Order: sequence, then C-alpha cells, then structure tokens
Amino acid sequence: MDLYGHDLICTQDWSVEELEAVLELAAKMKRDRFSPRWTSILQHKTFLMFFYNPSVRTRQSFETAATELGGHAQFLEPKTMRLKTATTAGETVEDAARVMSRYAHGLGIRILEDKIGAYGEGDDLLREYARWATIPIISMAHDKYHPCQGLADVMGWLEHLGDVRGKKLLVAWGHGALARSWCSVQEALLIGSRFGMDVTLAHPEGYDLDPQVVEWTKGNCAANGRTFEVVHDVTSGYEGAHIVYSRNWMSPDAYRDGQLHKQEEIDRALRYPAWICDAAKMALTDDALFTHPMPVDRGHEVTDEVASGPRSVIYDVAENRLHVQKALMALTMGSM
Amino acid sequence: MDLYGHDLICTQDWSVEELEAVLELAAKMKRDRFSPRWTSILQHKTFLMFFYNPSVRTRQSFETAATELGGHAQFLEPKTMRLKTATTAGETVEDAARVMSRYAHGLGIRILEDKIGAYGEGDDLLREYARWATIPIISMAHDKYHPCQGLADVMGWLEHLGDVRGKKLLVAWGHGALARSWCSVQEALLIGSRFGMDVTLAHPEGYDLDPQVVEWTKGNCAANGRTFEVVHDVTSGYEGAHIVYSRNWMSPDAYRDGQLHKQEEIDRALRYPAWICDAAKMALTDDALFTHPMPVDRGHEVTDEVASGPRSVIYDVAENRLHVQKALMALTMGSM
Amino acid sequence: MDLYGHDLICTQDWSVEELEAVLELAAKMKRDRFSPRWTSILQHKTFLMFFYNPSVRTRQSFETAATELGGHAQFLEPKTMRLKTATTAGETVEDAARVMSRYAHGLGIRILEDKIGAYGEGDDLLREYARWATIPIISMAHDKYHPCQGLADVMGWLEHLGDVRGKKLLVAWGHGALARSWCSVQEALLIGSRFGMDVTLAHPEGYDLDPQVVEWTKGNCAANGRTFEVVHDVTSGYEGAHIVYSRNWMSPDAYRDGQLHKQEEIDRALRYPAWICDAAKMALTDDALFTHPMPVDRGHEVTDEVASGPRSVIYDVAENRLHVQKALMALTMGSM
Repeated sequence: MDLYGHDLICTQDWSVEELEAVLELAAKMKRDRFSPRWTSILQHKTFLMFFYNPSVRTRQSFETAATELGGHAQFLEPKTMRLKTATTAGETVEDAARVMSRYAHGLGIRILEDKIGAYGEGDDLLREYARWATIPIISMAHDKYHPCQGLADVMGWLEHLGDVRGKKLLVAWGHGALARSWCSVQEALLIGSRFGMDVTLAHPEGYDLDPQVVEWTKGNCAANGRTFEVVHDVTSGYEGAHIVYSRNWMSPDAYRDGQLHKQEEIDRALRYPAWICDAAKMALTDDALFTHPMPVDRGHEVTDEVASGPRSVIYDVAENRLHVQKALMALTMGSM
Repeated sequence: MDLYGHDLICTQDWSVEELEAVLELAAKMKRDRFSPRWTSILQHKTFLMFFYNPSVRTRQSFETAATELGGHAQFLEPKTMRLKTATTAGETVEDAARVMSRYAHGLGIRILEDKIGAYGEGDDLLREYARWATIPIISMAHDKYHPCQGLADVMGWLEHLGDVRGKKLLVAWGHGALARSWCSVQEALLIGSRFGMDVTLAHPEGYDLDPQVVEWTKGNCAANGRTFEVVHDVTSGYEGAHIVYSRNWMSPDAYRDGQLHKQEEIDRALRYPAWICDAAKMALTDDALFTHPMPVDRGHEVTDEVASGPRSVIYDVAENRLHVQKALMALTMGSM
Repeated sequence: MDLYGHDLICTQDWSVEELEAVLELAAKMKRDRFSPRWTSILQHKTFLMFFYNPSVRTRQSFETAATELGGHAQFLEPKTMRLKTATTAGETVEDAARVMSRYAHGLGIRILEDKIGAYGEGDDLLREYARWATIPIISMAHDKYHPCQGLADVMGWLEHLGDVRGKKLLVAWGHGALARSWCSVQEALLIGSRFGMDVTLAHPEGYDLDPQVVEWTKGNCAANGRTFEVVHDVTSGYEGAHIVYSRNWMSPDAYRDGQLHKQEEIDRALRYPAWICDAAKMALTDDALFTHPMPVDRGHEVTDEVASGPRSVIYDVAENRLHVQKALMALTMGSM
C-alpha cells in the first residue's frame, strides 16, 4: 500500500485498509510522540493551509503536526489571495494549484457555512484543486466531509473500547443557537459504518442529512452485516448504545437563493430543547462513551455533567486530531 | 529550583531567586545566541500565542525566541476563534485550555485596552486559562502586568549599571495623545523594588496606579531597606535618579460602564505638556539611563534628544525581550 | 564578491556579476532542492515579512524559502503594528527598524497600489527602512520595482533559451479590468536590458512608465550594444521577438490628489481590447516564449491558448521565485 500523493477529501474515497494504516501509524506516533522516527519526515517541507473559515483545533493541530514532523505549515486566508470565485475576478484554480504544487508538499482546505452559497460548493472547490494540483489535497473540514475528524473519532473510540465492530453508534441531533455544518456528523456516520458498527441516526423531522451519505452509510452497514436505522424521537436511539455523538446540524433548508439563512436556522434549532444529551438519556445506553468533535455547546447539545463526566472522550478525540493528521501527512507527503 | 510547568502572569508571583535564574540564563543566551546548548530546547515543540491585541515587538520577539530554541510559535487571533466571552456564545476556557494543553507546550496571551471592559478582566482571563491548562501560561502583556518587559528592563539596567541595588528608579508619567495600559509601568515598579532599588513614582494628581501594586512596591522596598515615594510635580523625582522611565498611562477613570473611554483619556493626557522627559530634567539626575518599553511617543513622553541620546538604553532593553523570553520558555517548557 | 548584508530594492542597484551570482546559486539550489548544503544556511534564523498588500506567490515562496534554508519567516501585517505614517501616530521607522535588526536577519517589505498615495512612496519607505536597519531590506514588490520577480524571469528565460544575449524581449501592455503596479514590468525592462537583450516596449499612448526606468533601460541596452524602442501599435513589437511579456499596468495619471483612482484606470484599461497576447500575434514572433509574473488575467492580458500553450513558461518562472529568493537570502543573510 502506497498512499504517497493521495488526496483525502472523504474517508469513503479510501479503503478500510488505507484508513487502518493511518490509524495504526497514528497510534505509534501517539505512544512515542517526538521519536526521531517521525521528526524528519517533513523536514524543510511546507504544508499550505487555506482557511476560508477560521478554526481553533484544526489550525492548531495541523500546524503542530507539521512542526512535529520537522516541517512548516503556512497559515493562509484566501480572502486576501485575489483568487477567482463566482463573483470576483482573480486567479484561476488551475493557475493557483499548479504554482502551489511547485512550492509545497501538501495543501489543506477548510471551507464551511457562510463561505459557500449552496451545499456542495465546498466539496466542488476541493475537487477542483485536486484536479490541478500535483500535491495531496487534504480536507480540513468542508461542507460535506471532515475526514480528519472521522479518523480522530474512531481512534478515540478504539482506545476506549478496544474494538468497535458490532458496537452501536448513536449520532443524535442537538439543539442550540447554532447552524452547524454537516461535515463532522456525516463523516462519523461513514467511518463508523465502515468500521463495522451498528449505526442509529436520530434527529427531529426535517433535519435530514445528505441522501448520498445516508445511502453510503446504509451500504457500509449492510456490507458488514450490521444494522442502520433513522429515528425521529429523542430517546429510543440511546438504548443499548456504546457511543453517543450529540451534535447540532443545520436543516436541508439552510441554503436557499445562494446563501445561508443562519438566523432562521438558529431560531428553528432552538425549538427542540428536548434534544440534548443528558445523564437520564445516557442511563439508557450500554455505559456509552460520549463523543463530540468540539467546540461543544454545553447546555444545548449536551449537559456539563455528561460532557465533563467520566465517560466523555472529547479531549482524547481532540488530541487524536494531531496524531491522525501527523500520520496522514507522513503517509501522503513524507518519505515513509 | 525547577521552573518547569510554571505560569508567569506577574513577576511578584515568583521569588527573586527564580527571576534571577531567568536573567542569568538570558545573559548566557545573549552572549552565545545560537549555541547548540539552546537550539534544541524546544525542538519540534509548539508555543501558542493569543493576540487579543496586536503588537510589534512582542510578536516578533516571542516568535523569534521559539525559532531560536528550535521550536515554533503559532500566531493566533482569538477574534477568529469562536471562544465564549461575556457577550458571545462559544467554547469555554476549560474546553479550549484542556485541548490546547494536548497540542502545545506553552500558551502566551496578550490582552489590553479596548479588548476588556474593566481593569482586571485581562488578568482574570489569564488566571482562568492557568486554572485549566496543564501547560505554562505566559503573559505577553495584559491589563495588569507585563512580566517579560519587567525582566527585559532589569536585564538592560544590569548590563549598563552592573548592579541596581541601592540605585534610584524614577517611573514618571508622560503626556501625549495616548491612553496606555498600566502593565509595563506596574511591572517596572514591582521588579525594580524586588531587586533592591529606591523607587520614585511621579505623576499628575489623578493618575494613580493599582493600589495593590503600589502596596506591593512599598512592601518590596521596605523588605530591602529601600525607600518608596510618590510625587506629583514634574521635576523633583529626577533628582539623583539612576534610571528614568517616562511613559504615558491612562487614569483610573478610563474604564467606566464596561468600556474604555479612550478619547476622553487622550484629551486629558494632552493637558500636561510639562510631563515630558527632556535634557533639562535629565540634567538633574545622577547621569541616569533613559529606559522605555517602546513604542516611544517621541515629542510627548520624551524628547528625541533623550530617546536617541547616549544614555538611552531603549534598543538594548527591546533586544532583551528576546533573550529573557528564550530563557523563560527554556525553563518553563523545555528540557533544561 | 560578498553580498552579506546587502539590501535588494532594485536590480539596477546591483552589478550584473552580483545578479549572476544569485542566478548561479539559484540554479544549483533548484537542481538539488533539499541538499544539506542549503538546509542549515538560515537555521534558527528569522526573516520578517511586512505585507502592506496581500499576496499569494510572494508570501508562499518567501515563507517556503526560509523553511527550506532551515529558518523561519514571520508573516506580519503592518496595519496591526501601530507604525507612524503620514496620517497616524505611532512608532518611527528608525525605532522599528533598529529593534527588528536586533531580532531578525532580514526584512522583506511589500507595498503596492492603494497602500500609497503617490508613485514612489513605497520606494521611499523601503529606503527609509534600509537607512536605519542593520539587516538586509528585500523588496517583495513595491510601487517601483520587483527585483525577485526580475531574477525569476531571467532564470526561467535562461532555462528555456540557454542564453538571452542578443535575443529580443517584448514587454507589451495588456487590457483588462485591472490597474496593476509598474513594479514587475519595470523590473523586466531593467534586468532584460542588463542581460544583453534587445528590448521593445509596446503600449497605447498614455501608458508611459517611469521615465527614469526607461532611461536606465535605454542606457543598459546601449552599454551592451543592443537596441531599445517604444512602439504604440498592437502588433509590430511581436515581430522577431524571442520572449513576450504581456501584462497590464496603470497609467501615469492613476495617482492624483494623494490617492489611486482605481475605477477610472479600470474603465480606461477596458477601452483597448486589441491589446491582448493571442496566437495570431505570437505567430509573428521567432517562436517566442510567453512569460508573465502572475496572477494572469486570462482572456484580457493573454488568451488561454497562449497562457496554457507549449511556449508558456509561467509556471517555471513562478517556481523560480522560490529558488532565486533562497539564493538571495542565503547570500545576503546566511553563512555562505
């Protein structure tokens, strides 16, 4: 298996064996974080980071990852880059991607929420860069997928459960003054189902995710002989769950007329206060772990009691962002 | 003495011996700036820098310090970080600090002037980060203190005077179209008095500093058998001084109703044109050094003649920011 | 020849031998990009980058260059730096430059278009920094010159033509919704003529460049026994050309009353649709290379057919920015 030069836009594009190779290397890197085995992998090499949207963990974990591999990550904000878009003149993606391929060894892109006018535009942009660049394109979260989050999630679940095959994953919608992208939850559905979990998706009516992702998840579960179900009540999904993933996401109506109707989504999301992960619901599970990609909206998506409780793995999962990204960069850009 | 893992929010929190350890190492690092003894101390390690307020010297000297120790400093602007504040939803300091502790080996925070609504809020924020983070929290200047400036000041004074014990430090208010924070001058009072100086604080009526800081300074002087005095005339403080520190600061009335009344402060500060450090006043001193944390407001806080004169140590002190910060990072985050 | 400590504000300030030394080292660095001969040249050293104007290639290529030499480039935006300007209070260039010289080993400055009120102000600023700084000042493109672009241009032309002496360079104005600075084209005229080319400058009436630059170019050509001409028709310059450089630039009327009249320039530049480099015009040349400093305004300055055609060297020239800048930093700031 040789992952050198591969793009990672969605985990569904990679084989389970390839994803396992990343997780295996990430686990070694976590055990022996500053080993000389890793610290020269990207020595003197550059990873470009395009942040259309700001970020805390993604910025910090990617930039730290490059540093720990001996390389350097450049923090770039495309708003200052005179790039061509639907509405502004500027450089074509072809020209930008071809030149960047001469300078750098990888390019990460983050594009979410209000930086797009319709669901899918972010994914289109990443695939356009992938078309022209000769270096790997890595999603640092975009409208459709968040593959590094998915890898970090599974790494954390494996650390705490030993194995996830045959375990039940609940992905539950959470309320709050929020209109969050679909990328993290969609990635969780895809990667959880790839790794052999039973998957339950729970949300109020009207909060459907991308039908293609739901279809893939169903197919992944079927291929592994596992179950997939969608429920619309608050509690039934919790029964027997081993992992609970409670997170807000916007409705399919969020993008209309070329823009995100954020306030409308926030108003709508506040109408479902029962959709919070709390101790009473967690009591219905099979002593489930609580997982979340952060930032956590405490008091809305989940109570403090659960988020800071003994079964919460949120900090471990967040830490794993660093390790899976190091492994990913090493395998796709380094000399491994 | 083991400083590994220690926060530095104010020099008054550290013992004189600990501060001297920083200064001693800083002097060695200055003598032999790129020695292999130092260049691997933070190798592959990350220092996070939160700039709520912009900066020239602080940004450059911290980022350069990390580079010279073999590590990397990440420049972060919290306004893009979706953190929870009094007025905005977002991530709690607990969650942010716990995750950052997994990625980085230290966290610097700068928060001043208009980024707070009342004196003390910046200090509260740093102490809240210190509460949750398991890595050192370093003040890069906040409303109350500026410990790295204080260390650089003393390092420069020692270089030029040999010893500061028994020497007279004048900290004098300067006029100008400014409303500067109290952090640098308060730190100078504290650290000067810790190191055995006689201290005179000179300012117009109505420009009192934090009573706690004045109390500590008085106590430090008393513990060393030195004098402390406050004067409200322009010239008397200069008599017999060995070091003159002339700098604008805002009045205690600057923060009211949860905000900084900057224009009012500027108008007020311009009413005292006699409060400028000039050659005539310097002639009253015992051939005093002129010191200032920069940026200098030439023509208001001090004349060009004095700022660029033979007794000015402003560039040496500014350079020392680099060396004391390298020493501080080495001792609190590195493997020394 | 010792270039250590030299500023590079315009190639005309350097001897041809000095420019050739940069190109020779750049060629070696390109052949063996990560050789240990280069990767420690700036080890643990800092290069400061002041971006008054944003950039893609310049930022990426300078930051990558520092990384590949073992050093670190700091991305700084002077708008956050409280520097003194004609209209704002703040720190003097003297104070800023003197302190930066204590921290860093070089300082790059980019200042263009709307960040100045009259042609020449950017150049004045760089020369003011050069006056006070004790470290090299490198232009990263300013209103008058773009020396790194000029070096990258010649490096690319040499790669494709073997020798440029006696070859014909056409620098032709291009239309479009643009008002581009003079720096790149002026640098091309100067460096092409220094290296022994015949030079033709083609533009509509009213688009004269800096008379000083035209005078120097004429002198350079004369010194080499080559020709220099200015033409005002669209096609005649193409005849017999070996290199075609088609690029928009603003008129000499662009700056008036202390500001850039950008929209006026754009409206004016759109009135000349015949001024585009296309296949028909290229057919008049001696199988000329197409060159451009990027970003390319495809469909205005040049057709897609030519920009992406077999004789286009735009990506090679863009790549060479990295190599010439590495060589330049090595020679002026490193231990070569």
